[in-house]
Amino acid sequence: MHYSASNSVTIRLKLNNLPGTIARAMEAIGTAGGNLGAIDIVRAEKDALVRDISVYTGGDEHVKEIVAALNAVDGVKVINVSDQTFLLHLGGKLDVQSKIPLQNRDQLSMAYTPGVARVCMAIAENPEKAYQLTIKGNTVAVVTDGSAVLGLGNIGPEAAMPVMEGKAQLFKEFAGVNAFPICLATQDVEEIIQTVKFLAPTFGGINLEDIAAPRCFEIERRLVEELDIPVFHDDQHGTAVVFIAGLLNALKVVNKKPEDIKVVLLGVGAAGTACTEMMLHMGIKNVIGFDRTGALSSKYRTDLAPDKQAFANKTNPNQETGTLQEVIAGADVFVGLSSPDQITVEDLKKMAKDPIVFAMANPDPEINPELAYPHVAVMATGRSDYPNQINNVLCFPGLFKGVFDCNARIINMEMKVAAASAIASAISPEDLSASYIIPSVFDKKVARSVADAVKKAAIETGVARRR
Amino acid sequence: MHYSASNSVTIRLKLNNLPGTIARAMEAIGTAGGNLGAIDIVRAEKDALVRDISVYTGGDEHVKEIVAALNAVDGVKVINVSDQTFLLHLGGKLDVQSKIPLQNRDQLSMAYTPGVARVCMAIAENPEKAYQLTIKGNTVAVVTDGSAVLGLGNIGPEAAMPVMEGKAQLFKEFAGVNAFPICLATQDVEEIIQTVKFLAPTFGGINLEDIAAPRCFEIERRLVEELDIPVFHDDQHGTAVVFIAGLLNALKVVNKKPEDIKVVLLGVGAAGTACTEMMLHMGIKNVIGFDRTGALSSKYRTDLAPDKQAFANKTNPNQETGTLQEVIAGADVFVGLSSPDQITVEDLKKMAKDPIVFAMANPDPEINPELAYPHVAVMATGRSDYPNQINNVLCFPGLFKGVFDCNARIINMEMKVAAASAIASAISPEDLSASYIIPSVFDKKVARSVADAVKKAAIETGVARRR
Repeated sequence: MHYSASNSVTIRLKLNNLPGTIARAMEAIGTAGGNLGAIDIVRAEKDALVRDISVYTGGDEHVKEIVAALNAVDGVKVINVSDQTFLLHLGGKLDVQSKIPLQNRDQLSMAYTPGVARVCMAIAENPEKAYQLTIKGNTVAVVTDGSAVLGLGNIGPEAAMPVMEGKAQLFKEFAGVNAFPICLATQDVEEIIQTVKFLAPTFGGINLEDIAAPRCFEIERRLVEELDIPVFHDDQHGTAVVFIAGLLNALKVVNKKPEDIKVVLLGVGAAGTACTEMMLHMGIKNVIGFDRTGALSSKYRTDLAPDKQAFANKTNPNQETGTLQEVIAGADVFVGLSSPDQITVEDLKKMAKDPIVFAMANPDPEINPELAYPHVAVMATGRSDYPNQINNVLCFPGLFKGVFDCNARIINMEMKVAAASAIASAISPEDLSASYIIPSVFDKKVARSVADAVKKAAIETGVARRR
Repeated sequence: MHYSASNSVTIRLKLNNLPGTIARAMEAIGTAGGNLGAIDIVRAEKDALVRDISVYTGGDEHVKEIVAALNAVDGVKVINVSDQTFLLHLGGKLDVQSKIPLQNRDQLSMAYTPGVARVCMAIAENPEKAYQLTIKGNTVAVVTDGSAVLGLGNIGPEAAMPVMEGKAQLFKEFAGVNAFPICLATQDVEEIIQTVKFLAPTFGGINLEDIAAPRCFEIERRLVEELDIPVFHDDQHGTAVVFIAGLLNALKVVNKKPEDIKVVLLGVGAAGTACTEMMLHMGIKNVIGFDRTGALSSKYRTDLAPDKQAFANKTNPNQETGTLQEVIAGADVFVGLSSPDQITVEDLKKMAKDPIVFAMANPDPEINPELAYPHVAVMATGRSDYPNQINNVLCFPGLFKGVFDCNARIINMEMKVAAASAIASAISPEDLSASYIIPSVFDKKVARSVADAVKKAAIETGVARRR
């Protein structure tokens, strides 16, 4: 049973006052496999006590079993079950606050009319001043069409909101950046592009999120070309930056060089494409991508759509063909951005000495880590309950903070590489090990050092509008 | 000289240590007409003190005179002048905050992955749950195209941001409602409508702001029809609600009835049209509108554009014609939503007994209040430095709070009338007087009573989706 705080519930119980009732209730929860948290008294009634009991569970079905077990106990009645995750979401997770009090006439006359008019006119005369005198200079739009939300698929803009709000929370909590969710009621490429362009005056940057491939490529490419503020598709580049950080450190652990290794990559969607571009940029020569049909080869595959054709043209220099199970032989690195249980222990055994496995499918990786560990040198996943979690939150808050610190026009490859290096460098050479190639998401120093590195790279590559 | 905190500056001075220097500096400021505020010591230097002095001024030119006067004083040197209003705007005026801390794995797993996925799925199954589980249920988009900002005109979306941020601050400060500025890079009617529709999933309401007439009418009408969340053009209806509140109380002061009075209204733009619709609804029969050509008459004016033709069809039952100066004779109420200095004392003298004047042009009213006071029974303006300020902030925060309290689909006339009555009722019959027909914008009870009245009216008229 996989317990998680994300599946925690508070069960309100009515217990009679006879000795032993509470103990029998606790026992029932334990026997049903629930993990006990806090116990509070709500109120005393005649001959009974009402208590709230927090229980970590394995999910909805498990909650039902625990409730049934409790109701079967003599003198115990379940009054209510409240889901902590839903309680936390009530009313949404964001608050738009005024930075300054507005409690008297003087404050109002400076923040609003008549004083605000002079600030408006200053921006009308020089629109660049919007970066200093409005929230534009520190505010990101988190834009989605709800077409590829987490692993949930095309659930639409309303249902995507909790994720986008969560993203905005992380921007503020980790880097002090304002972010606001924009969930669009269209999945048409041109309409999305047009809408984001019309919205742009309010924002200093656009974080595209959970937009399905291949439309995400066109949307990002066009917006980068047509807007004068940075546009960043986090599912592509955020994942790639953190993956590259982990790969840099993993190669140090096994003492291999980028130019010498063979990489097989399963899942050439948004993230797989971006990871591959960064691998090529860092000098890896032999990357072979796989879709469901097999290895992508510009010579032998004639069925490829334009995006995959472009991928094939840049990769697989030896034109290897066949299934992943065949081509994985002799590979130094496996990169999975696909779905659960795609490779086996037998596959790992065919890899080169000291294999490195990035099995990043969510929520369940391409191979169960427990099965893989005996056969790999370094393993990373997308999960928080195993070592080496590849989590975008290590990248995007600090990256945009760096962008805003120098008012960068775009986010270029050099800035992404700088972010990856900063994340990798958060682990000192003495601490680096197979089970510690990526810093904790709660290491608050990471966002600051990513921001500094990104700002430096922006200035050096001439895309910073301010120093 | 009209002093205002909105024109306050902090002047940094270097003063020699000789006795009397500071006194001479203060004297120079006073002689130049500056109004002294706080005085702080910044640092001591060899033979000199550096001080910051706050001065309320009459505007930019006045600041230059004060600085020149100070520099002319022996032993005094102005080092720097900082504008308090601009300082207050640095970095913008809004902050997007996380409502909950995200400092450990459990918190992260509930607010973001993996816990958030269950919340997303609950909304995907029932999109109405977005009102409870996301910020949608308490968040307004403050949408503008920057085409008619304050009295500044068509200054564009970036320059409109400080006003929209100020509006968002007021929503939060006065009613706890989240609001976010959306400043659009288009002034095309269809593009604005389309963009707002695509944005709507994030928001529970749309506050249109500072969009020029006549396009504002079409945009509002279409969005009301095509969206399932309330759309409210504040320049029209917010102004009308607060005006009606003032008019209700003014009529009580002079003991006249709505059905008996004659009203002349100058400026049949967005606000003038909305004010007229509410006046007709409250039973006023004789309203005569004026544009630059003269009285709007459906019988005698053949030059009218569709919006003005519609206005004429509903008003001026006696088909009066001529200039404002002619038709104002015998009028009980003058309503100005135009530009400064449009009427004279001579015009006031032609009005009926106990004339009521709402001279709401900003920043300077249709007649100088000092000139008008001897000749009117009740006078209101848009200004905070005279009695009876007609300020939309009395309406929009509480109105949207009421909408959100019952999840209203639209904002109908009954809800606007309820808001106007609640604002009028904030002044008790004992307190009501010619110089106190409108409560202070800082009367925090107003927003709460507006919200309650609006909610009640929404429920009674069947537009509330929740009780």
